[in-house]
Amino acid sequence: MAEFDDNPSSVQDSLQQVTELLLRRRQLLSQRPDVSHPRQVEELLDKQDSTALQLKLDQLHPADVAYILEAMPLDERLIVWDLIKADRDGDILLEVSDAVRETLIAHMDERELVAATGQLDTDEIADLAPDLPREVMQDVFRALSVEEREQLRAAMSYPEDAVGALMDFDMITVRDDITVEVVLRYLRRLDEMPDHTDQLFVVDRQEHLKGLLPVNRLLVTDPDIVVAAVMGQEYVKFQPDEKAQDAALAFERYDLVSAPVVDADDKLIGRVTVNTVVDFIREETDSEKLSAGGLREEEDLFASVWSSVRNRWTWLAINLVTAFIASRVIGAFEGSIGKLVALAALMPIIAGIGGNSGNQTITMIVRALALGQINSSSARKLFVKEIGVSLINGLIWGGVVGLFAFFIYHSWQLGLVMTGAMFLNLLLAALMGVTIPLVMHKLGRDPAVGSSVLITAITDSGGFFIFLGLATVFLVGR
Amino acid sequence: MAEFDDNPSSVQDSLQQVTELLLRRRQLLSQRPDVSHPRQVEELLDKQDSTALQLKLDQLHPADVAYILEAMPLDERLIVWDLIKADRDGDILLEVSDAVRETLIAHMDERELVAATGQLDTDEIADLAPDLPREVMQDVFRALSVEEREQLRAAMSYPEDAVGALMDFDMITVRDDITVEVVLRYLRRLDEMPDHTDQLFVVDRQEHLKGLLPVNRLLVTDPDIVVAAVMGQEYVKFQPDEKAQDAALAFERYDLVSAPVVDADDKLIGRVTVNTVVDFIREETDSEKLSAGGLREEEDLFASVWSSVRNRWTWLAINLVTAFIASRVIGAFEGSIGKLVALAALMPIIAGIGGNSGNQTITMIVRALALGQINSSSARKLFVKEIGVSLINGLIWGGVVGLFAFFIYHSWQLGLVMTGAMFLNLLLAALMGVTIPLVMHKLGRDPAVGSSVLITAITDSGGFFIFLGLATVFLVGR
Repeated sequence: MAEFDDNPSSVQDSLQQVTELLLRRRQLLSQRPDVSHPRQVEELLDKQDSTALQLKLDQLHPADVAYILEAMPLDERLIVWDLIKADRDGDILLEVSDAVRETLIAHMDERELVAATGQLDTDEIADLAPDLPREVMQDVFRALSVEEREQLRAAMSYPEDAVGALMDFDMITVRDDITVEVVLRYLRRLDEMPDHTDQLFVVDRQEHLKGLLPVNRLLVTDPDIVVAAVMGQEYVKFQPDEKAQDAALAFERYDLVSAPVVDADDKLIGRVTVNTVVDFIREETDSEKLSAGGLREEEDLFASVWSSVRNRWTWLAINLVTAFIASRVIGAFEGSIGKLVALAALMPIIAGIGGNSGNQTITMIVRALALGQINSSSARKLFVKEIGVSLINGLIWGGVVGLFAFFIYHSWQLGLVMTGAMFLNLLLAALMGVTIPLVMHKLGRDPAVGSSVLITAITDSGGFFIFLGLATVFLVGR
Repeated sequence: MAEFDDNPSSVQDSLQQVTELLLRRRQLLSQRPDVSHPRQVEELLDKQDSTALQLKLDQLHPADVAYILEAMPLDERLIVWDLIKADRDGDILLEVSDAVRETLIAHMDERELVAATGQLDTDEIADLAPDLPREVMQDVFRALSVEEREQLRAAMSYPEDAVGALMDFDMITVRDDITVEVVLRYLRRLDEMPDHTDQLFVVDRQEHLKGLLPVNRLLVTDPDIVVAAVMGQEYVKFQPDEKAQDAALAFERYDLVSAPVVDADDKLIGRVTVNTVVDFIREETDSEKLSAGGLREEEDLFASVWSSVRNRWTWLAINLVTAFIASRVIGAFEGSIGKLVALAALMPIIAGIGGNSGNQTITMIVRALALGQINSSSARKLFVKEIGVSLINGLIWGGVVGLFAFFIYHSWQLGLVMTGAMFLNLLLAALMGVTIPLVMHKLGRDPAVGSSVLITAITDSGGFFIFLGLATVFLVGR
């Protein structure tokens, strides 16, 4: 196993130690302004302290170094990056987030980048490729064998959310007409087996996949038995253009460690392993969380102010447009508000609770759609259920806000209008909360993106319109 | 491998088929009201059709059956559940969500429940235990061996978010003074190895963990070598009361398939495997998504209206309180609004964009806190950055909303007040967006829960106060 500390929570201790070493280094540098040859002293100090730092960094797992780099402001991050041995650069670049990777790559020259890829497998180079300058990729290609070039081209040809992008090529294949004994002898000739090899892939001469041979079954099987007799013939396999999301669900459901990837002719072209799937799941849920929070993409924690502004402006702009629309809806009722100012104080309640309730419905539906659990017959049942929920909520919360309005403004008519508006806006929220994601799904778009903004816009403007409209008709209009 | 269809997307086809079989069954039942002995016919039809359904269900992996059960309305779900062979009940109960599991268990009698646990390992029984009636658990305990009882008690003693709750007891242990040859001979005597056995655990006579022996290394090592010479001695291990979240991060970082769990004396007491970790990650992100959407817990898609209302009322109530507060803030400025009605139409813009921007900041900070990437020195840098972002956003969006107000109401004073209020509310959002999660973290609470509601409440009430306050001072007050 790798040479890293055996306690996972020690990563944070390591971060602390590295930060302290950096701090000490800076203090030493600043405390000696009176020395005659400051340059030389600086260099010396630099060297001493860097050695301690370097020792610490060398002991850490690439993933831990990546973690530390991400937790550091840009200037310190680059000092640490320079201290890392060149032969670990590639592994660490693979582990850091896209945003931080950009800052590190921008700091490296062409030669360093080519060297960094030297230690990597072709599927790993493919992961880095989008961030590498074109000239670097040309040099990288030149350094590869013909087979590797083909693998790299294949791996780079799939979109990020396809199985092909998760695939690696580290699989061991065997024929089905040999005995377990021969397989064991073959394996023993290897120095080591690829990570996550829980099964061997049984193929024919044309590389067509015929079965899977779990390594653990090898160990408990009589060596004289032929592979064909012990291999599994029912198994999960993927095609490279399938959705990575589907593969992730299959790994979860069937508790897989690895699975074969085949082409349309059932020829084995690669495999997917659980560690890649775990990373994919984490990245995916991460990016969902970020977009739910209104961020366009993952943001380097210490990104420059300007790049943060750019990362956030899209959602702010969209929300501004919906806010402008809501504002004009209110503007249309300025006459009523002028006559009954209480309306201005009460209207945000109707809009706010409507948005809240609509988002609850949408969360449910989006989740069920993502799992593929909704078909046309169950959709009708869901409508009925959500409308039922909104009717009950309308009575309960409508009653509460009606009482609130009555106690503050001592007008039972105003209270009734509040209750009615709340009731109607919750009904609107339920209808739209089911309809929006279903329609987006039908149109082939991801209902997780934008549904929430849309429902909030509708329950805001709708809520203002319903409440001010009812008030105009029943309270001020006549 | 298990006997399930080899294409993962076929789960949805299976769902479709099961639904159709159920539908046909119902149609047949309803088409023959004129038969003399309707009861008998019904029973016969029932049997015929049930056989087709049963055949289909028997072919499916437990996880796929669970998926189908979750996607079905309650009445159909129970029909399907009754058709499933009793010896698969336990495995399927483990796979369904908590909410659906409750509906299934409520439909089973004591005897069936005890039988369902009969096929399960002790760590699996522990997962079901919270949902089982007390009498059932007593019967289950009685049926176990002394060792199993102790395992079950241990597994049940850990909270859901501790490593102990993820642990199983299916590990193979060996001594370090035997040769690889002996290990291989020992393994060959087993019928099969436990799932996810990527390594054997090397222990001494007192069960103290001394090292790990990867199965793959067994296969490539000279059989005459002693275990002590090939085992790995640097590895990740957990204690049962560690946070499951930390274990999940370690599995992700170090690409683990299994890892040992030891007690304070370094005695081996269990192991964690990657499939459990994947399930944990999925459940955790799922519940984060649900609570972000304002749902208290996972909701059965076809839950009764009433239980849905209960699942959603907490967040609606909290939001109602914050809406009431905001409403009273506006109420305090009714005099100003009465004089200048445009304020009512413009104020939601200030509040809305402030909330949006605050949530962007909070999303960033909560994520960094969850990863442990923030310490006191970086916290200061984050404050500076977020304030910088809010100043720029304040200028940009403040300018835009100011122009909007000017063009609609032809008052440059109103436009300036809008710009100023936007600027100040975005600054408030940035300050609170960093402060709230940091303070919650310091107080030992999970900043992911409630931060968003809190920031929205502050930027709503704060935004109304800032905007109406500025307007009162500069536009109407004097």
